[in-house]
Amino acid sequence: MNHNKKNSRRGFIQQTALASAGIILATPIKMFAEIKINKNMSKNIKTRGYAAKDNSGKLSPWEFERRPVGDNDILIDIKFASICHSDIHQMKGDWGEQQYPQVPGHEIAGIVSAVGKNVTKFKVGDRAGVGCMVGSCMECDNCRHGEEQYCDKGTTLFTYGYPDKTSPSGITQGGYSNNIVVTEHFAIHIPEHISLQEAVPLLCAGITTYSPIMNANFNIGDKVGVAGIGGLGHLAVKIAVSKGAEVYAFTTSKDKVKDILSFGAKEVIVVDDLDKLKPFKGKLDYMISTIPVQFDLAAYSSVVKPHGHFTQVGMPAGFEITVSTMGLGNNRVNINASMIGGIPETQEVVHYCADNKVLPKIEIINASQINEAWAKVLHKEARYRYVIDAATF
Amino acid sequence: MNHNKKNSRRGFIQQTALASAGIILATPIKMFAEIKINKNMSKNIKTRGYAAKDNSGKLSPWEFERRPVGDNDILIDIKFASICHSDIHQMKGDWGEQQYPQVPGHEIAGIVSAVGKNVTKFKVGDRAGVGCMVGSCMECDNCRHGEEQYCDKGTTLFTYGYPDKTSPSGITQGGYSNNIVVTEHFAIHIPEHISLQEAVPLLCAGITTYSPIMNANFNIGDKVGVAGIGGLGHLAVKIAVSKGAEVYAFTTSKDKVKDILSFGAKEVIVVDDLDKLKPFKGKLDYMISTIPVQFDLAAYSSVVKPHGHFTQVGMPAGFEITVSTMGLGNNRVNINASMIGGIPETQEVVHYCADNKVLPKIEIINASQINEAWAKVLHKEARYRYVIDAATF
Ligand SMILES: [Zn+2]
Ligand SMILES: [Zn+2]
Ligand SMILES: [Zn+2]
Ligand SMILES: [Zn+2]
Repeated sequence: MNHNKKNSRRGFIQQTALASAGIILATPIKMFAEIKINKNMSKNIKTRGYAAKDNSGKLSPWEFERRPVGDNDILIDIKFASICHSDIHQMKGDWGEQQYPQVPGHEIAGIVSAVGKNVTKFKVGDRAGVGCMVGSCMECDNCRHGEEQYCDKGTTLFTYGYPDKTSPSGITQGGYSNNIVVTEHFAIHIPEHISLQEAVPLLCAGITTYSPIMNANFNIGDKVGVAGIGGLGHLAVKIAVSKGAEVYAFTTSKDKVKDILSFGAKEVIVVDDLDKLKPFKGKLDYMISTIPVQFDLAAYSSVVKPHGHFTQVGMPAGFEITVSTMGLGNNRVNINASMIGGIPETQEVVHYCADNKVLPKIEIINASQINEAWAKVLHKEARYRYVIDAATF
Repeated sequence: MNHNKKNSRRGFIQQTALASAGIILATPIKMFAEIKINKNMSKNIKTRGYAAKDNSGKLSPWEFERRPVGDNDILIDIKFASICHSDIHQMKGDWGEQQYPQVPGHEIAGIVSAVGKNVTKFKVGDRAGVGCMVGSCMECDNCRHGEEQYCDKGTTLFTYGYPDKTSPSGITQGGYSNNIVVTEHFAIHIPEHISLQEAVPLLCAGITTYSPIMNANFNIGDKVGVAGIGGLGHLAVKIAVSKGAEVYAFTTSKDKVKDILSFGAKEVIVVDDLDKLKPFKGKLDYMISTIPVQFDLAAYSSVVKPHGHFTQVGMPAGFEITVSTMGLGNNRVNINASMIGGIPETQEVVHYCADNKVLPKIEIINASQINEAWAKVLHKEARYRYVIDAATF
C-alpha cells in the first residue's frame, strides 16, 4: 500500500488527531478547536527552512509548504536537525542534477504535533525522528523485511530531492526546517533517555555505520578498522568499541588523535602518507570506511586480512570510486558498500545508543551558521557533528 | 633462499644433469658429452622467440639469451605457448611502461631438456609447464604456503617483463619462444593424459578461474555466473560445470551462444544491453568476471544475491576499474579480485582438468600468425585460445 498515492486519490484528508500537543481537554471548546484545526490540516502546512537555490553549495532561508497530514502521517515539530556530508554533496549536484529550491537534512528529531486517523505508532507529544527515507512501496520483499532502502521496485523515497507528487514543491524537502510531515512507518521513536540533539546524528551517521558493523558479525576482541573519522566515523568508532571490538582508527587529521582515543580506539593512525598503512597490512579482521571522497580503496583495504571484508559507506562525488583491481587481487579482501539501514534497524540503533550511552560529539549551531558549518565540514574541521537548533529557522 | 641470487653470487654454475633427453648411457662417451654440454650450459642459452620492440602491440622475431641452467633450474624445450589477453595489455603498456624487446607468454609447456644438480622434481624428458610466475622469496608466510603470487616481500617474479638480474636482457622473458630456464619450484608437471597444447591454457586461464571458483565454496547445484566468455571465461564455465554448478554465462557475443551451451552452461545471456541483466537481479549464488576492460561492475554484480560474492579476475587497462558505490550499496554484493593461483594449486588444476577432461577449446597457429591472432583476441574473435606451435619460432 502506497499511502501517499492512496491519500492523493482520496483528495480529502480526514483528520482525527489533534493538531498540536497541549490541546488535551475533551470539552466543547476543545472540540471546536479540533474541528477548526482539522480544517486547517486538510490544507498544506507552512514551513520555514534553509534551502539550496542552486548548486553553489550555499543555503538561504526559504518558506515553503508540506503536504497536509494524511491518514497515515504524522506532523513533527522539528527541534533539531544535523548536518551530514551527503547534504553538501547532493545540494552541489555532485550526485546528479538537482531541483531547487531544495531543503537538505536527513537527521531530524522533534515532537509529534499531529497524527492522521490511522496512525497507531505515535501520539501527539511523542519524541520522533526522521532519517534518510520517508517512503517506499511497503509491498515488496525488501520493504516487508524492513529493508525499505533496498525496495525491489525502486520506490524508496529519500528524505529530500526525490520526486514526490504529494509535496507541493514536487520533491521531498528535508529537515533543515521547523516541521515535517511523514508517513508514520518512516518515523522513529526517540526514547526519553537520550537528548533529541544527541539522537539526530544516529538517524543517518549512526544507522549507516551500525548496520554494516552488525552485519560484519565480528567477535569480541576482533580488530576493527574505521577509516575517515568525521560524523559517521566517530560514531563507527564508538559503536564498534561498544560492541567489543579493538578499534583501529585511520584519519588524515592529526589533531583528532586525542579525541579518537577518548572515543575508545585502541590506536589512531594518522595517514598523512599511504605508507602509514603498510605496518597494518593484513592485520585487521574487518574495516569500515566513511571516507566520502576519492581515495585509494585498495591501499586502505589492504590492512584487512585476506578474505576479510571491507565496507565502504562514504559516497564520493558521482557515487563512483576508482579502484585498483591489482591491489584488490593482492589484498584478497572483499569489498562491499552499504546504504543506511532499514527502519527497524534504525529504531534499533537509536535504542542501542540511548541504552549504552553511545553518543555523538556534537556542536549546536543556529540556522544562520549553516553555511559556515558546511565549509568546516568540507575542510574536515567539524568536531564531529553540527546540530542545527530548529528554533532559529 | 633466493636461488637466483645465490646462483649469480656463485658466478659459476656446476651442472650435474644431462643437457638434453636422449643421452642416457653412462659410458665414457656419454661422460665426455655430458662434460662438454655442461660447459656449454654454464653459458647463456640461445633462444628464438617473438618480442614486442615497442608499445605498438605488434610482435616480431627476436633472438635472445636465457641465463645458464642453475643448480635449481630446469631447461624446457618449449612445444606450445598460448596467447592470453594479458600479453597484449602488458606489451602495449596498458599496465605501465615496459622495457623492450620483451617476449610475452605465460602459458608454456614442453619437454625438460636439462636439470640443475639440486633438481629433484623433474628429470630430463619430463613434460613440464610454466605459468605466470618464475620466482619469489620462498621464505615468507605466503611463499611457504603455496601462495607465491602474494609474496609478502613483493618479490614475486612474473614470467615476463619483470626486472631479473639473472636474465641477460635484465628482465624476465616469456614463453613465445623455443625454450625457457626456470627454477624447478615454478615449473608444473603435465601428466601424460592431457596434450601439451591443451594443457598450456590451464597455466594462466585455468588457474586464474579455478582458484576463485574453488575459494567460493559453492554447493552442487548452486547458480554460478561467468561474465566474459573468452579464454578465461570458457574455462571458468567448464570448471564450474565440472564442479557441479548450474552455470549462467554472460557474453556480449551472440555467436558464442551455441559453443557456450556445449560447454555445459545452463543458460547464456547475451548482454547487448545492461537491461538484459535485470531479470537475474539477486538470483545467482556467486559470479566470476573475466572481463578485461572497463565495464559496469555494479550492474553485473547485481545478479548475485545480497551478501553473495563476485570475483573480478580480468585486469583492465591501468589495473583500474571505476565502480558505482551506490550500485554496490544497492546490491549488497561483496566484490573481490583474484590473481592467478599459487604453484601447488596450479599443479592441482592441471591434474584436475586432465583427470576430468576439462579441456580448453584451442586453435593452433604458427608464430607468423601471432599478430593476426592478437587482433582477433582484441576483437573478441578468438575461439577460445590461440596456441602457438613453438616449432615455428
Ligand atoms: Zn547522511
Ligand atoms: Zn518495496
Ligand atoms: Zn594470462
Ligand atoms: Zn615470499
